[in-house]
Amino acid sequence: MKQNVYDNSTFFKAYTNLRESGITYNDFIEQPAIKSIVPNMKGKSVLDLGCGDGHFSKYCIENGAKKVIGIDISTNMIERAKKINGDKHIEYICVPMEDLKLTNQQFDLVISSLSIHYVEDYSALIRNINRLLKSNGEFIFSTEHPIVTARKGTSHWISTEENNKLHWALDNYHEEGKREHDWFVDGVVIYHRTISTLINTLIENGFVLDKIVEPQPTPVGLEKMPKLIHEKRRPSFIIIKSKKLNE
Amino acid sequence: MKQNVYDNSTFFKAYTNLRESGITYNDFIEQPAIKSIVPNMKGKSVLDLGCGDGHFSKYCIENGAKKVIGIDISTNMIERAKKINGDKHIEYICVPMEDLKLTNQQFDLVISSLSIHYVEDYSALIRNINRLLKSNGEFIFSTEHPIVTARKGTSHWISTEENNKLHWALDNYHEEGKREHDWFVDGVVIYHRTISTLINTLIENGFVLDKIVEPQPTPVGLEKMPKLIHEKRRPSFIIIKSKKLNE
Repeated sequence: MKQNVYDNSTFFKAYTNLRESGITYNDFIEQPAIKSIVPNMKGKSVLDLGCGDGHFSKYCIENGAKKVIGIDISTNMIERAKKINGDKHIEYICVPMEDLKLTNQQFDLVISSLSIHYVEDYSALIRNINRLLKSNGEFIFSTEHPIVTARKGTSHWISTEENNKLHWALDNYHEEGKREHDWFVDGVVIYHRTISTLINTLIENGFVLDKIVEPQPTPVGLEKMPKLIHEKRRPSFIIIKSKKLNE
Repeated sequence: MKQNVYDNSTFFKAYTNLRESGITYNDFIEQPAIKSIVPNMKGKSVLDLGCGDGHFSKYCIENGAKKVIGIDISTNMIERAKKINGDKHIEYICVPMEDLKLTNQQFDLVISSLSIHYVEDYSALIRNINRLLKSNGEFIFSTEHPIVTARKGTSHWISTEENNKLHWALDNYHEEGKREHDWFVDGVVIYHRTISTLINTLIENGFVLDKIVEPQPTPVGLEKMPKLIHEKRRPSFIIIKSKKLNE
C-alpha cells in the first residue's frame, strides 16, 4: 500500500508549520537549485508530480507556463494547494503519482520536487513519465541524495557529546529499498536507490541526461540557518535534469 | 608539477607486488566491471590513458582491437608494460596524459582505469579526450568514488577497538581539490571531485552519458578476499561510459 503520511494530521500540521516558517532545507538548498535549472516556461504545459501545497505549480504559472497539472497523493495537500496556490491555469488532482493515467495528454515539462523517494517502483514511474512527455520534453526532479538515504536505522551525523559534528555516517549503500525514519511521526517510509540506478534507469527508458546538481546552501540560507554550513560536508539532495529522446 | 609516484622505487615495488598477488580491489571489483561494459573491440583503435603495466592494453588486443596506444607518466610502468604486455599492435609511450598531443590521430575508444583521480585539471583532460575521439567514439573511465575521496586527512572506516567496522566516514564532500593519503609511501596526491562535476564536465564538453556503474565485489572476490564484503556498504569506485556526440 502506498504511504500517505501527509494525510496523517500530526505530520501534516508539523510539516505545514515548518514550511510556513520559510526556514527550511527546501527554501535554502533545494528550491533555489531546482529553480535555477528549469527551462524558460513561457507557453509550456507542466506536470508537477507530488505538488504538495502547490508552491511550484504556482511558480510555473508566474513564470509564463500556460497550464499546470499538479498531483499529490494527499487530500490535505491538494486542499491546501487549491486554497493558497489556486489559479485558473492550474488543475490540482488528488492521485498517487504511480497511478497517474492522463492518457490523452503530453507535457513540455514534468517536474517533481522531493517526492520520488517516496515511490517504490522507480522504473515504472520513469516509463510512465516518458509516456507523459512530448518529444524533447524535459523531466527535472530532486530527491534526497543516495548518501543521505543509504544507511539503515539511524542515518545521521556522528557527533561528540558537545554536539560537534565529526563526520557523516554512511552504510548499506548497495542495499536498495525501503528505509524508515522518524520525521514528525515514526516510521516515515522512503526508498533508497543508488546514484547509478537513478541515472541508468532514465537512460534505459528513453531519456538523455542533461545535468546533475548537488546543491549547496545559498548565502542567505547560511545566514538565516547557520547549521546549513554542515551541508557543505555531505551532499544533501540530488537534482537530475533530463530530456526525452526524439522518437 | 605532476606527481609521478609510480617512479618512486619503494612505491613501485610495493605496488607491483600487490598487483602480482592477483588479490586486489582491481581484480575483484573494478576490472570485472569495466570489462563488462567495454564495447566489442573488433577492429577498433584504442587509447589507454594511464596504462600502467599494460594489462588492459593487452586485453584490448586479445579481444580484437587492431591497434592500442598505451600511455603512462611512469618510466617504470612503461618499461614493465613493454616487458610483460608487449605486442606488435601496442605502442607504449611515456607521457603524462595531461600533455598528450597525438594531433593526427583519432580513436574509436579511449579508456582509463583508475588514473584520472591523479589529474588536477579534469576539464582540460576531458576536452583533450573529446578531440582524440572519432565521432561516436566511446570514452570509458573508472575512478575512485567521490564518497571515498571526499574526506580530508584520514579517510576511512570508523571501527570499534575490536576492529568491527561501524560505518564509513564522509566529510568535505563539496570541497573539491587535492587530497593526500598514505598508500605504500606518504603523501600520494589525488584530486577529489563531486559526482556532479565528473558527469556535467563530460556533458558540457560534447559527450552523451551512456551508463554509470558503481561496481560491487564479484562472488569469487568475496571468497578470496573476505573483507570485500564491506564494499557493499559504500560505493568504492565509479565507472562512467560516454559517447562523443556527432559533430
